[in-house]
Amino acid sequence: MNKYLDQNKIDKLAYLSIKRGVSLQKGQDLLITAPIESLELVRKICEYAYKEGANIVTPLFSDSDITLSRFKFAHDESFDKAPTWLYNGIGEAFDNNTARMAIVADDPALLAEMDTDKVSRANKANNIAYKPARERITEFKINWNIISWPGKAWAKRVFPNLEENDAINKLGDAIFHASRVSTDDPILEWDNHNKNLRKKTDWLNSMNFKSLHYTGPGTSLEVGLADGHEWMGGASEAQNGIICNPNIPSEEVFTTPHAFKVNGSVCSTKPLSYQGTLIDNISVEFKEGKIINAKASKGENVLLKVLDSDDGSRRLGEVALVPNSSPISQLDITFFNTLFDENAASHIALGQCYTKCFKNKNLNPEEIKARGGNSSIIHIDWMIGSGKIDVLGEDQNGNMVPIFKQGEWCN
Amino acid sequence: MNKYLDQNKIDKLAYLSIKRGVSLQKGQDLLITAPIESLELVRKICEYAYKEGANIVTPLFSDSDITLSRFKFAHDESFDKAPTWLYNGIGEAFDNNTARMAIVADDPALLAEMDTDKVSRANKANNIAYKPARERITEFKINWNIISWPGKAWAKRVFPNLEENDAINKLGDAIFHASRVSTDDPILEWDNHNKNLRKKTDWLNSMNFKSLHYTGPGTSLEVGLADGHEWMGGASEAQNGIICNPNIPSEEVFTTPHAFKVNGSVCSTKPLSYQGTLIDNISVEFKEGKIINAKASKGENVLLKVLDSDDGSRRLGEVALVPNSSPISQLDITFFNTLFDENAASHIALGQCYTKCFKNKNLNPEEIKARGGNSSIIHIDWMIGSGKIDVLGEDQNGNMVPIFKQGEWCN
Repeated sequence: MNKYLDQNKIDKLAYLSIKRGVSLQKGQDLLITAPIESLELVRKICEYAYKEGANIVTPLFSDSDITLSRFKFAHDESFDKAPTWLYNGIGEAFDNNTARMAIVADDPALLAEMDTDKVSRANKANNIAYKPARERITEFKINWNIISWPGKAWAKRVFPNLEENDAINKLGDAIFHASRVSTDDPILEWDNHNKNLRKKTDWLNSMNFKSLHYTGPGTSLEVGLADGHEWMGGASEAQNGIICNPNIPSEEVFTTPHAFKVNGSVCSTKPLSYQGTLIDNISVEFKEGKIINAKASKGENVLLKVLDSDDGSRRLGEVALVPNSSPISQLDITFFNTLFDENAASHIALGQCYTKCFKNKNLNPEEIKARGGNSSIIHIDWMIGSGKIDVLGEDQNGNMVPIFKQGEWCN
Repeated sequence: MNKYLDQNKIDKLAYLSIKRGVSLQKGQDLLITAPIESLELVRKICEYAYKEGANIVTPLFSDSDITLSRFKFAHDESFDKAPTWLYNGIGEAFDNNTARMAIVADDPALLAEMDTDKVSRANKANNIAYKPARERITEFKINWNIISWPGKAWAKRVFPNLEENDAINKLGDAIFHASRVSTDDPILEWDNHNKNLRKKTDWLNSMNFKSLHYTGPGTSLEVGLADGHEWMGGASEAQNGIICNPNIPSEEVFTTPHAFKVNGSVCSTKPLSYQGTLIDNISVEFKEGKIINAKASKGENVLLKVLDSDDGSRRLGEVALVPNSSPISQLDITFFNTLFDENAASHIALGQCYTKCFKNKNLNPEEIKARGGNSSIIHIDWMIGSGKIDVLGEDQNGNMVPIFKQGEWCN
């Protein structure tokens, strides 16, 4: 038990994750992946899961020392292998309606000092082996949820100048605050938060904007939206009929832009952490959807390499609106973790689009492409919102409607 | 890191388990099950596994708090369920030649205070789901190994009067000593130990005794051996061709007795821990293989219930010889854990026989039965050896050959 963390908030986070995060139903199994560091939280989650009527809760624990051991000591052939049997088992669990919870606690740059060739080969082998099971998540077949825990190395990454326990404590507070469990009734908070996000997506969907126009310091950008796009955010319904909150925290409403209808210039407003590299002060120019110019004050060579990943990596796959008053934004912390950083500000993502962000849920890949949905092996979110950004929506008749004024919702 | 335990011995135990326990081969995957309490040992095992050329090492961690959570809080239907998907995955791993390691550290009486109906239903559901994977172990398809770690609750169970850290330290020392890692070169110790056990099994197999005759205080027992029985012990070859030491520690040589040819009286010489109940001073009488009288000074009602489990539960399935000078016997500790307690003294087991303990490895169940092999849902070892027991072997010509004199090998 970590004496430095608020036990009451840990308890609230566990309860929230079961009741509103994964929204576990009586008689469902639950699969949890978690670093051993988060054991204290996992124990409470298991307790609440059983109290809510879970059949079997199976935590699969990881340990960062053991993860590193492989990259330090394994023979070369190891890095093209993966535990296929385990991923096959997980796929079988999902096919039997097992709910999924993931706890994020590791240092985001855990593998930064390992051999990059080994890391990328291991990732590739894992991605191939995990693909069938992962697709059940991306296709939203079952209810799932991600929450976070202040792991030691992550905390020291975020607060390098603090003592270890102070860093854990401070990251813990930030996670609790962002996850809205630093309140009397987190369940009620999330119900209200989901309602608010739903109001926004309902309004945006009813407006059916053709494009968004961003203006602010260094930014003058028009982002065309995909034909038949749908705005999503907050609680949503999995294919098994269970309404869950996949991401805790989550402040964004998001949809799919048109891969060929983005024009103008945009600057990043927060640093981007990409696989252990910090990329700061990004500034890019789009023409007909494609980035034709890109620079950064830090990490520019990594950025340029990423942009050349494939045909879709210079085009947008996601556009998301987050008000500057979001609890995460107000914390003014770089978490080096997309789950948090993408919820600190309005953002765009290079690469793969969300295929679920269309009104018609049964589109095939060709139909998605025809509507402007981008395709890529990458999906990298970066922040372009701040208190100085205005966003206008252009409706189908060419009227300009205010959406954000100085970083806040206009209605 | 446990400051109370000898780091050098932990390291030696990890190395021994990889090199001689599971005898991991280059390019093999390794599956480890372990309580989180033993993380320190698991980390070292993973490091050695990768250094020895493992492809993927997958530790599946358990936590006794989470195990108890289910029995305390789950709804009634939960107890007829099992994580079949995980056991199916494990079966697939074994079919792909994955080696298996288990680390034992939990309190042997962990579930003693839980609802016995729930526990037995959960065990049954688990046994059914795990059966296909478990059979690959019992049929010795792949190399496997069990070692132990001094878990906190187990240590307090063994040494209830010691402070927690002292109890852990003392149980740790006992485990290290029994596992022969309190030596300069545990690998060499085990090579010599395996050679010695091999000499005993070679001699016993060459003698092909018809029966064993035990005499000592309260004991006068004749145990007929199964027709075509084979003595085994120490290192043995799995069906994948890898020679491993499944049990660390292991002091016994053992074979299959004849289920219908046991006569006389025998007393237990050490207490038996059976599912959290202590059964002490057992005294039974056999007639034509069957126990016709049984009593005990403690736990007699549990003993009598066990004896009525099924048709085979009053007959013997194993007979094992362990000298009184074995390191475990000399410790004079009741571990409440068969892995240790059965290696402290010569023992017999009620119930299911080892089908591998026949010279002919391809016998079907009918042929095993015809040769005297017993069949039962139970297999319970209990100790009948001490420094006061003599054992004679009767050869096929009726000659009586000394095997044990006052608890020690005669040759």
